[in-house]
Amino acid sequence: MSQHNYNKSALTENEGIEQPNTTNQNAIAKFQARRKQKISTEEIIQRIIAKDKVALSQGITLIESLNPLHHAQADEIVQGCLPYANKSVRIGITGVPGVGKSTFIEAFGLLLTSLGKKVAVLAIDPSSSITKGSILGDKTRMEELVREENAFIRPSASGDSLGGVARKTRESIILCEACGFDTILVETVGVGQSETAVQSMVDFFLLLNLAGAGDELQGIKRGIMEMADAVIINKADGENIKRAHMAKLDYNRALHLFPKKPSGWTPKVSTCSAIENTGIKEIWNIINQYTTLTKENGYFDNRRQEQNQYWMMETINENILMNFYNHPEIKAMLTENKKAVQNSELSPFAAAHKILDLYFNSQAK
Amino acid sequence: MSQHNYNKSALTENEGIEQPNTTNQNAIAKFQARRKQKISTEEIIQRIIAKDKVALSQGITLIESLNPLHHAQADEIVQGCLPYANKSVRIGITGVPGVGKSTFIEAFGLLLTSLGKKVAVLAIDPSSSITKGSILGDKTRMEELVREENAFIRPSASGDSLGGVARKTRESIILCEACGFDTILVETVGVGQSETAVQSMVDFFLLLNLAGAGDELQGIKRGIMEMADAVIINKADGENIKRAHMAKLDYNRALHLFPKKPSGWTPKVSTCSAIENTGIKEIWNIINQYTTLTKENGYFDNRRQEQNQYWMMETINENILMNFYNHPEIKAMLTENKKAVQNSELSPFAAAHKILDLYFNSQAK
Repeated sequence: MSQHNYNKSALTENEGIEQPNTTNQNAIAKFQARRKQKISTEEIIQRIIAKDKVALSQGITLIESLNPLHHAQADEIVQGCLPYANKSVRIGITGVPGVGKSTFIEAFGLLLTSLGKKVAVLAIDPSSSITKGSILGDKTRMEELVREENAFIRPSASGDSLGGVARKTRESIILCEACGFDTILVETVGVGQSETAVQSMVDFFLLLNLAGAGDELQGIKRGIMEMADAVIINKADGENIKRAHMAKLDYNRALHLFPKKPSGWTPKVSTCSAIENTGIKEIWNIINQYTTLTKENGYFDNRRQEQNQYWMMETINENILMNFYNHPEIKAMLTENKKAVQNSELSPFAAAHKILDLYFNSQAK
Repeated sequence: MSQHNYNKSALTENEGIEQPNTTNQNAIAKFQARRKQKISTEEIIQRIIAKDKVALSQGITLIESLNPLHHAQADEIVQGCLPYANKSVRIGITGVPGVGKSTFIEAFGLLLTSLGKKVAVLAIDPSSSITKGSILGDKTRMEELVREENAFIRPSASGDSLGGVARKTRESIILCEACGFDTILVETVGVGQSETAVQSMVDFFLLLNLAGAGDELQGIKRGIMEMADAVIINKADGENIKRAHMAKLDYNRALHLFPKKPSGWTPKVSTCSAIENTGIKEIWNIINQYTTLTKENGYFDNRRQEQNQYWMMETINENILMNFYNHPEIKAMLTENKKAVQNSELSPFAAAHKILDLYFNSQAK
């Protein structure tokens, strides 16, 4: 960009020591790349709609970018894809590490592509900034699925809050759907708050478990059992088969004690072995039963509407609160008042109101 | 106040028709009461600490008052009681209407007073503005308990949001404790979001159920089962005994499938008949086991600290968001953008950001 063209100089001089470039070459490459992207927003949208997986990846990369300069472009792409989205079944899949999620998704995904489905696999892993994106990060664990023309696998965005990661995944779903993917699998680890986020973006929620629940379940967050539309007991193979069937009976009995779901759906329990590829078809049948039921009774569409409203409100609330908590005076006072509450010097409510007064007064100025 | 003193008049006149009073006597009484209260903030605190139930009632009335003029006084009273609070066990009790909550609380409360305990019964019922305070409103349902010197029963505050009602109940707990009540029962109806609020202010959460769960449970909100530290099957009497014991086995089996609680406590299942006064003592034993365990492992105190911090943060968040949503331009734009999201004209995120831009720009002015 600002490199001198010595040949055109009117002066000549003896060749001396080569000087380092006055501009950072990396920066130039970045600026050029950015400019290129800026020109091609419309092109990316058109190529996504034309079912181009490379463009889909580029679009998601913009959504995931932590660079604020990319936000407007990402918004435009999501906006442009929106009219072509929505035609899919979105399935959330959760389970603690070790339950065999990757193997299951590979077997399940391959079944779906063999049935002519187009399968996108996304993930929500708010811990990925620490674990360097452990879920789906190791794509080699889905060696076969990743080679399928009709499959698209994308690891979780990282380096962000749960709210941020969840928003990115949700926007990525829109791009995947616009790109013709009709079955969206959203993987998450059953140990944090991410399930609530996943549940608010999928149609069907699947909990993977192991037989001999006691120990294995310790890691699963409370409340997840009740979210599940199906509990699948994986690794029902070899010596495990009997235990898996016992567990199936237990879960069926337990699920009957839960209140009825607003969808009118009774959660199902099933066993499978992802490694031996048994019981996988049955799960897809269960999901089809669910979508048939909920599309007939109107729940399916209502739920998606509700989810849209939820995300709008969530985004608003998150930003409003962030604006408050990032206020430097607030931060200091919060720390101070938390201590006063801890020492029973201030009631939680008095402490809150002291901070609120500070905030609203500073805004009134 | 403004009543004429005819005897002191310099004029005399024939007695005619008696005129109605020019001022509303009810209003006078109210003004006088208010003035009296204003003077006696310190007195109310001192009398509460001296275990005066009338002062306790007055204090709670101020907390519940919708008149903003009372807020500062209420805050002072809570603040003044704070150093004397905290020494109690706080028990949340939930269950759908018809499960026999009032009868249970009467039987349970009478057991506690017979053991020398001082029992305060509070309630959270955000629906009470509509149902005119159905829970605990009908005090006659606790005829015996209400006559006990060592019992204090207070219906739910009404005419307020859940957040408001919950805050008032939580502040009332502080006053009850300062007044020497060592066992606080917080009743709620298991049909709304109020359980989360209750759970964040009690040490132990008790779910009342009936045998033949299927139908009766329909009204219980999902997720409540997993909150429970004990599931009590009420009405285990007469022909119901066998079914109640079957239900106990079922619940025990179901609870084993749940992940372990952070308290280290395994939820217990028990049967009782509040009407026949059987199985009530066992429930108190369960609660004692719980407090012994959690006081030893430190969970009890940690939890209360966490709850304090939670309430401080909740109060802040609620107020910050209320300030946003009460903004008249925001209200209008929200309605508009919700529609745009519904018609897939705007993504939930784009809609949210349009509203946020409006808000932050209006604040920057």
